[in-house]
Amino acid sequence: MNSVGLVESQFITIKRSLDLDCGRTLPEFTLAYETYGKLNPERSNALLICHALSGDQHAAGYHSTEDRKPGWWDNCIGPGKPFDTDRFFVVAPNNLGGCKGSSGPASVNPETGKQYGPDFPLVTVHDWVVSQSYLADELGIEQWAAVIGGSLGGMQVMQWAIDFPDRLRQAVVIAAAPKLTAQNIAFNEVARQAIFSDPDFHQGHYYEHNTTPRQGLMLARMLGHITYLSDHAMREKFGRDLREGKLNFGFDVEFQVESYLRYQGKSFVDRFDANTYLIMTKALDYFDPALNWDDDLPRAFQNTSAEFLVISFTGDWRFSPARSREIVRALIAAKKKVSYVEIDADLGHDAFLTAIPEYHSVLQSYMHTLQI
Amino acid sequence: MNSVGLVESQFITIKRSLDLDCGRTLPEFTLAYETYGKLNPERSNALLICHALSGDQHAAGYHSTEDRKPGWWDNCIGPGKPFDTDRFFVVAPNNLGGCKGSSGPASVNPETGKQYGPDFPLVTVHDWVVSQSYLADELGIEQWAAVIGGSLGGMQVMQWAIDFPDRLRQAVVIAAAPKLTAQNIAFNEVARQAIFSDPDFHQGHYYEHNTTPRQGLMLARMLGHITYLSDHAMREKFGRDLREGKLNFGFDVEFQVESYLRYQGKSFVDRFDANTYLIMTKALDYFDPALNWDDDLPRAFQNTSAEFLVISFTGDWRFSPARSREIVRALIAAKKKVSYVEIDADLGHDAFLTAIPEYHSVLQSYMHTLQI
Repeated sequence: MNSVGLVESQFITIKRSLDLDCGRTLPEFTLAYETYGKLNPERSNALLICHALSGDQHAAGYHSTEDRKPGWWDNCIGPGKPFDTDRFFVVAPNNLGGCKGSSGPASVNPETGKQYGPDFPLVTVHDWVVSQSYLADELGIEQWAAVIGGSLGGMQVMQWAIDFPDRLRQAVVIAAAPKLTAQNIAFNEVARQAIFSDPDFHQGHYYEHNTTPRQGLMLARMLGHITYLSDHAMREKFGRDLREGKLNFGFDVEFQVESYLRYQGKSFVDRFDANTYLIMTKALDYFDPALNWDDDLPRAFQNTSAEFLVISFTGDWRFSPARSREIVRALIAAKKKVSYVEIDADLGHDAFLTAIPEYHSVLQSYMHTLQI
Repeated sequence: MNSVGLVESQFITIKRSLDLDCGRTLPEFTLAYETYGKLNPERSNALLICHALSGDQHAAGYHSTEDRKPGWWDNCIGPGKPFDTDRFFVVAPNNLGGCKGSSGPASVNPETGKQYGPDFPLVTVHDWVVSQSYLADELGIEQWAAVIGGSLGGMQVMQWAIDFPDRLRQAVVIAAAPKLTAQNIAFNEVARQAIFSDPDFHQGHYYEHNTTPRQGLMLARMLGHITYLSDHAMREKFGRDLREGKLNFGFDVEFQVESYLRYQGKSFVDRFDANTYLIMTKALDYFDPALNWDDDLPRAFQNTSAEFLVISFTGDWRFSPARSREIVRALIAAKKKVSYVEIDADLGHDAFLTAIPEYHSVLQSYMHTLQI
């Protein structure tokens, strides 16, 4: 139907050195990315899609006719969809440090000839944005029509607007926050400790041991899932339903919610890398664009020139509407153009990935007004 | 000052068989307990204190002059305190399945001559209440002046009122809920999986291996602590403060909240047993007194004769005030006497253990009106 159809990931090695926030330099790096739609002759219709914690470059379409699931934001990207590929050229990269083909812990370190493993540098949202700007240079995109992302993706959008004010016209920040709270960091820390505690982790050198810290990564993901769903959504979805209709007084799965979490945890391990998970959680913890501006968020936004659309979801307790309103208030204080929409949705943080009609209709209308 | 001073735990082996909800029977069992104050000749001034997930019988006073910390509810129990030991005789048992001297996983199974380990039966809140009623029989206490508890302790209070309506005059239910939500169960499930995943767990037979699943239990406790504190309290306590004042781009402790969680996790492991933790979380998951009454909580309360005091804390997101109000509404629907107080406190679930003046003054006044 309105799918972008079969797509392939592309891989580009960018031969420019990248100075990272941590003080280390990558002499060159690879980014995996996918594109959907066509770049117009004016090169004015490009959208950059930034992914969240466990996302990747496969944002839309199918890799093969056997694929059961399309890319992670397929409901939003395609012909006639909010990010309309009949009109826009959509670029979706995998972040540096990722595990789907961009330079990351599983890549070979040119200095040692061995996989980086835990020696891959910790990267920041700023580092990602700079690496994405190099990708834009390679693709001949001087200015994005819009940079768009949810959750950790929304943080990249803000960083883009701050770091490269002239290189985007619109900034679409969905279900994000201007920085993590102590509680957010605490959840990330427990997830990391779960991975570190797994004896198959081998201090990150598990590739060499032909193991993978399955249990630790599974726990991290189970915990993540609790924060992605609202208490209300969990109640609606599972309640206190018992899988076998009765208590069995043992530690096998009894409640449906246990079954769901174990399934989510196990299936994640098959598609994700623990070292990448660690890097992504640290990038989240570190994100704090106001830090360089005396903790003054309006000042951090003062040089931006993009117009902003900020969207939040009422049932989201990971990054609640209150956190989005902090962003909006700072933008208003900085005298920037910003539209704010709070979507009534009980699902929780994961709502940003779903096709809630009101949400998609807001995106559709907004994108429709964009001049290209 | 107003301390009960030096106290000793007592241990009683009750030679009565106990039929458990799981279908198994304990031919006899031991309960560890402490008492503070004196039972009056009329035996009418006894208070039962029920502990929460990680509590024990040491609720007040000191075990030795070297003790740095008193019992877990020392701020509430003592001469002149809300549970005034000049007036009341306070009994604090360790729950069955515990690890401080009551029969539990580390006890010897008389049938095998070996420690139970994971073969200790899963016990329920109802089982605890029955075992506590046997203790009351042994102590010659026909009727408690009040049964009191917070969190999982508050669930025992409700169960007492339902199971033994004539054996208590007052029921003080603090920071509790009529049953766990799917989200509550989900947190417990991740904690359990963390313990199961630890290679030192040996499917619960770690005593025989001279190991203990330190990492798993530490993770479980870290996760628990996130749910005991409110987001606001964490922000007040730690904010995004960096321990060394700067990012170090590594996985050692960077943010103060990480340091706090690791410390809490590690110190817990030295004083608690993983098999007991598993049993306690399951008792929480299973608690649902309305289940036998077609999910009709007022009907579950219909035969109670105690007066109720229900207390909640505004910043508690583990068992929020909304959950306490469910209890209150059910009691009102059942035409029972109930007082309800919502304490304005940002701390989170842990507030019930603190000496918030308004909270203690409510308890003090309430206890003062009790006829003994």
